[in-house]
Amino acid sequence: MPKKEFEEKKITTREEDYSQWYLDVIDAAQLAEHSPVKGCMVIKPYGYAIWEGMQKYLDERFKETGVENAYFPLFIPQSFLTREANHVEGFAPEVAVVTRAGGKELEEPLVVRPTSETIMYDTFSRWVHSYRDLPLLINQWANVVRWEMRTRLFLRTTEFLWQEGHTVHASDAEADERARMMLEVYRKFAEDILAIPVIPGEKTESERFAGAAKTYCLEAMMQDGKALQFATSHHLGQNFAKVFDVKFAAENGELEYGWQTSWGLSTRTIGALIMTHSDDKGLVLPPRLAQYQVVIVPIVPKPDAAELVRTNADELAIRLREAGLRVKVDYRDMRPGEKFFEWEKKGVPVRIELGPKDIAAKTAVVVRRDSGEKESVSLEGIVEALPNVLEDIQTVLFNRALEYRKEKTVSVDSWDNFKTEIEKGKFVMAHWSGEADVEAKIKEETNATIRCIPFDQPDEEGVCILSGKPSLRRVVFAKSY
Amino acid sequence: MPKKEFEEKKITTREEDYSQWYLDVIDAAQLAEHSPVKGCMVIKPYGYAIWEGMQKYLDERFKETGVENAYFPLFIPQSFLTREANHVEGFAPEVAVVTRAGGKELEEPLVVRPTSETIMYDTFSRWVHSYRDLPLLINQWANVVRWEMRTRLFLRTTEFLWQEGHTVHASDAEADERARMMLEVYRKFAEDILAIPVIPGEKTESERFAGAAKTYCLEAMMQDGKALQFATSHHLGQNFAKVFDVKFAAENGELEYGWQTSWGLSTRTIGALIMTHSDDKGLVLPPRLAQYQVVIVPIVPKPDAAELVRTNADELAIRLREAGLRVKVDYRDMRPGEKFFEWEKKGVPVRIELGPKDIAAKTAVVVRRDSGEKESVSLEGIVEALPNVLEDIQTVLFNRALEYRKEKTVSVDSWDNFKTEIEKGKFVMAHWSGEADVEAKIKEETNATIRCIPFDQPDEEGVCILSGKPSLRRVVFAKSY
Repeated sequence: MPKKEFEEKKITTREEDYSQWYLDVIDAAQLAEHSPVKGCMVIKPYGYAIWEGMQKYLDERFKETGVENAYFPLFIPQSFLTREANHVEGFAPEVAVVTRAGGKELEEPLVVRPTSETIMYDTFSRWVHSYRDLPLLINQWANVVRWEMRTRLFLRTTEFLWQEGHTVHASDAEADERARMMLEVYRKFAEDILAIPVIPGEKTESERFAGAAKTYCLEAMMQDGKALQFATSHHLGQNFAKVFDVKFAAENGELEYGWQTSWGLSTRTIGALIMTHSDDKGLVLPPRLAQYQVVIVPIVPKPDAAELVRTNADELAIRLREAGLRVKVDYRDMRPGEKFFEWEKKGVPVRIELGPKDIAAKTAVVVRRDSGEKESVSLEGIVEALPNVLEDIQTVLFNRALEYRKEKTVSVDSWDNFKTEIEKGKFVMAHWSGEADVEAKIKEETNATIRCIPFDQPDEEGVCILSGKPSLRRVVFAKSY
Repeated sequence: MPKKEFEEKKITTREEDYSQWYLDVIDAAQLAEHSPVKGCMVIKPYGYAIWEGMQKYLDERFKETGVENAYFPLFIPQSFLTREANHVEGFAPEVAVVTRAGGKELEEPLVVRPTSETIMYDTFSRWVHSYRDLPLLINQWANVVRWEMRTRLFLRTTEFLWQEGHTVHASDAEADERARMMLEVYRKFAEDILAIPVIPGEKTESERFAGAAKTYCLEAMMQDGKALQFATSHHLGQNFAKVFDVKFAAENGELEYGWQTSWGLSTRTIGALIMTHSDDKGLVLPPRLAQYQVVIVPIVPKPDAAELVRTNADELAIRLREAGLRVKVDYRDMRPGEKFFEWEKKGVPVRIELGPKDIAAKTAVVVRRDSGEKESVSLEGIVEALPNVLEDIQTVLFNRALEYRKEKTVSVDSWDNFKTEIEKGKFVMAHWSGEADVEAKIKEETNATIRCIPFDQPDEEGVCILSGKPSLRRVVFAKSY
């Protein structure tokens, strides 16, 4: 393989410079790049295919729970955004505003949606009349814009793609159930498909979505020990319903305000995926999500072997596809070593090398991306073997990430230890008094925030790490993206 | 059925007021509505499902031809738009402009994309280096904004959804072939899936896309005799490549400008669909596209029949789904008559009524939306019968639309007849000198434009309808949406 190629595209190691490693992986795997518009990215085909895989899975799950897709305007009248007090406070500083259109100044400026609660709920107020219209279960796949000062591909961009679900219910309990149900959809997606272990829990009041009564979230640990919020699901209570007049006649005839939820997952998830599994060689994709689970690289040492290899590679691809695998045969006019290198950087779970010698021996060389292990497998048994290999890779990735998180999670009871462990880049389980000013002070001094109050954290009496006041259970502190 | 219900939601007939009929059908079928933002629509779940059906079919076809999806920024620096002279002239008057973001005035205003040639090709100039990088075949599903003064749900809205394909090729011939290939994809979609007969052809110079060398299009006739441009595919030549510096090293080593195409289809297509097949009772959906091809309405005359009917309806639904049909069972707590009425308005191709009497007789009542025909079908044979019924409806819809277009298409050789027939709302096949000023004068006097120069129009010597100059074949004139 050409040395020059390797040198040109060298990926910075995680140890050397974690931030640069992240960007190098994105570049090496051809996922995305900066665009000429500040803060906006171009999602390249291989990166967009990851998003399509995510969309396909989630869209099916949402629909299974009765959710329907719809589409609401990109633009929101500025006055809408200001109606819910917390909401405007949260979003006003970061909106992009259209002031001119069709050659004229607009009478009322239009905000490019940072999220769609306001424009949707104004409409919902005309859709919802009676308890018979409920629950209203709507989702939208869309682009949103939040003007960010410091951007980072996938993790924080001015424009990003997401889905936002918005529902209306006849009772507080039903809305809460829906908010938790959607969090569970996200959890299964994270753990079963992306092989990313997550901690489900509730945000503290200060970390809540602007306008929500409760924010549920999933927190994942990246390979630098920082937390990344994977997805959120908000129980909005009646806050927005009161502002946008989403009312319904209950079964008893009384007019009541609806109980609402919203929940979303964005292209940021691709950043979480990269930072959970990838290594110093490039991207590592979990098999259940990968666009190509298997890439076949034909080895043609001499031109007269070309036909034999092609026939066998095609046949193998057909057999694997019939078994339900997503397979790419790479016939490009490049040297095999270059192809190996490229698919390694792109994180394809399994590579198959097939040349005349393999064919003569009725075998193929199977190489795993997760471990680099190389194995000669009989062509007869390969269709049966590969699904197991892929499932094994899926499991290995999840377990590896879970082990990593466990290693980097500590319980701490003193303020000094707290500061030390946070500084090391760990998840710190610690007691907290429940007071917002204490939370703020901890953040100010350590840069750590409460990622969530985990659902499954056992009750345990203790005292707050900073204030010394009583606390009933530990919460997760960490630095975050 | 309650008279009041019928009166409340009455759809204006086509004869009474065609424009109002169109809006009434959209309202009755719950497809879309106006939003609080001028010119922007809310696409409701039942309307959005139509768009999803269109996306699914087209996305698969695009990918079969080697096209990959990607995503480019919503915002375009204003300076980009002005680089290609014809392009800016075409789009500048109708753009929406972000001048303020993150609380500050922007140094360079950002245009909300009206189409993405400029932002994409600036990027392509960095992606394309050698003939080995070609063809580059990119598609994007996105929202775009064109500030329209007079809007109309689906047909002309300020924001709309579409796909835009953008390709780069090594030769003029290959780009032309791609532009025609994608037009053929759209033609098959129109005729085979939507049952809309279309006329494929080329636009005249004055009707071309802003910046294109050639614009290919499909023109369909609506039920008022007006033409609607179904989709377009542009051979851009090297116009944009020269402006955005999309260059490649050819096999002979010389640096050449790429040859490009772009092609798109938007939510406007839903307007075409509505106006081609719907009738005075509401929407009519072609079975191959319909979200639900069959709706089963259980008839429960007495509460004690509920379980029997439910068991049988469920079982029937399962059998039909196993046969690959898209089936909805409507268990809502409403009277059957109301349900019939609703699904009729929503254009579901086949309704099945199933009550205790039917079950006792081992039959079900099958009602076709296209003809209103009612037939009792044996439950044993229904799974075999229904796919044929659906295919027959598909064929009937296409043939009906084709017949309508034939009836309303005339060949005309005198200017007086031309004016008369255009005024009647017909497609007029007439000779034209090929001169832009003559075309402009015809438009000025009659409001008719040349919809296209059809590909399959035979050579025929004649003289221009207005100028009397020689012409070699007829073109299609019509008033249009």
